[in-house]
Amino acid sequence: MTPFRRVAFLGIGLIGASMARGMRAQGLMERGVALSRRHETLQQAMDLGLVEEVTDDPAAVVEDADLVVFCVPVGAMGALAEAVGPHLAPGALVTDVGSVKQGVVAAMAPHMPAHVDWVPGHPIAGTEHSGPAAGFAELFQGRWAIITPLLRSSAAGVDRLKALWEALGSKVAVMDPKHHDHVLAITSHLPHLIAYTIVDTAVQLGDDLREEVIAYSASGFRDFTRIAASDPVMWRDVFLNNREAVLEMLQRFNEDLTALQSAIRRGDGAALEAAFTRTRDIRRGIIDANQA
Amino acid sequence: MTPFRRVAFLGIGLIGASMARGMRAQGLMERGVALSRRHETLQQAMDLGLVEEVTDDPAAVVEDADLVVFCVPVGAMGALAEAVGPHLAPGALVTDVGSVKQGVVAAMAPHMPAHVDWVPGHPIAGTEHSGPAAGFAELFQGRWAIITPLLRSSAAGVDRLKALWEALGSKVAVMDPKHHDHVLAITSHLPHLIAYTIVDTAVQLGDDLREEVIAYSASGFRDFTRIAASDPVMWRDVFLNNREAVLEMLQRFNEDLTALQSAIRRGDGAALEAAFTRTRDIRRGIIDANQA
Repeated sequence: MTPFRRVAFLGIGLIGASMARGMRAQGLMERGVALSRRHETLQQAMDLGLVEEVTDDPAAVVEDADLVVFCVPVGAMGALAEAVGPHLAPGALVTDVGSVKQGVVAAMAPHMPAHVDWVPGHPIAGTEHSGPAAGFAELFQGRWAIITPLLRSSAAGVDRLKALWEALGSKVAVMDPKHHDHVLAITSHLPHLIAYTIVDTAVQLGDDLREEVIAYSASGFRDFTRIAASDPVMWRDVFLNNREAVLEMLQRFNEDLTALQSAIRRGDGAALEAAFTRTRDIRRGIIDANQA
Repeated sequence: MTPFRRVAFLGIGLIGASMARGMRAQGLMERGVALSRRHETLQQAMDLGLVEEVTDDPAAVVEDADLVVFCVPVGAMGALAEAVGPHLAPGALVTDVGSVKQGVVAAMAPHMPAHVDWVPGHPIAGTEHSGPAAGFAELFQGRWAIITPLLRSSAAGVDRLKALWEALGSKVAVMDPKHHDHVLAITSHLPHLIAYTIVDTAVQLGDDLREEVIAYSASGFRDFTRIAASDPVMWRDVFLNNREAVLEMLQRFNEDLTALQSAIRRGDGAALEAAFTRTRDIRRGIIDANQA
């Protein structure tokens, strides 16, 4: 694909930094510019060689950019869109990497001028680390990137974004924003909420027991703490912006948990074993799908 | 330490096989013998070279053994103790690897003759794989092994068991069975229950959505499926045998989850961010404790 001439990263944390590294490695970015309100982040982005320019000025960062990527927590996208909207260059491809799509689309919509090509997206990739130093070019390899085109998105813009994610090593799926939010509520948002909860339950156990929980953290809990070490602001925004789908999945989860709780209480081993056996198949499916 | 002359593994799944491999590698087992009701398992144990003898006869397996390790699911330990009890050799060191201690001690107690040295234990190590082929000598390295001596346990027996686990690479902690069950309820049992539940929730979503859940399983869900692929019978027995501690921790978890659910519903970002920030520290503690 033709490289982008000037790529504006609005926010340069784990995802933005990984995109910058990956695009650089693939020769897809002639010049990169990053926006952040935090000067420490901008300094890091320069020191790491992620981009050629940094700025805290929303007007300057998008000026003349032919690719604009919103990489801030989803709760910040609306205000940022408002700030950069009047300065977006005609014909620019505008996308984002938010873990929620309906909320982000609704927040950005009033501020997206008709003369840009707006195609929302979401790479399903990440680690529990955050910040520009956590980024690496291979983050997206073999992972899915979901593109959720709008009625106003051009076919050429969708194709270009698809090609970009494929160049970064991703498999690309196209779906509508509502469906995306439903699928992600169960595959990502609810698991994070549950992991945060159980680790918080442990945190609140009192000092003595907490020390032992740390010492004897067996495989189960240890994995949860890794998930629960993810960026708090990013995840706060995910839950606030995908409220309905998360609450719906949470209700289903609560019903299932109550059923298992009841099985434990009445000593119903058959019900427990049946549930624990059902869950094995889905793991095999994930291994077969190369997502393990 | 002096090697054991004849080691009886009552059950030879992941843990028994890993112990056999580790003891062999450390020169701590002159002769190993494994018991299983399943002939396929016995055949595997022989093919893998884990032990010199296999049998399905509870009387034969413990005859003349100076170390007897119960490695069956915790729900099977009582009946197995009853079957082997009359045949245990005087002076034999008898231990187990069960993830629950109070229930196992209560189930085995009526069948342990006074002439054996009985010291229950629990290596906090495992993977989501089960069966003799899943075993490897390094499984216990750097992990904790908890020993829960009884009033009847001899100091020499406790020391010997401690030395054995240390030789297998473990750090050893000594605590009473009740405390063990309390700590493990939060570090291991509840996380497994939660992981099983959320994966089961996904399983029950209906075929179309389930396929997508598999395809787009992001980091959170993917980790849960790994935990939820653990041995169903082993975990059924854990929950049935550590019922009280698990239900108590589950109640705390439910209260905390309800609080976060409520915060999402009313859009309380500050409450969410505070909870998600608290949980980061415990991860650092686990990394510092080298258990990550």
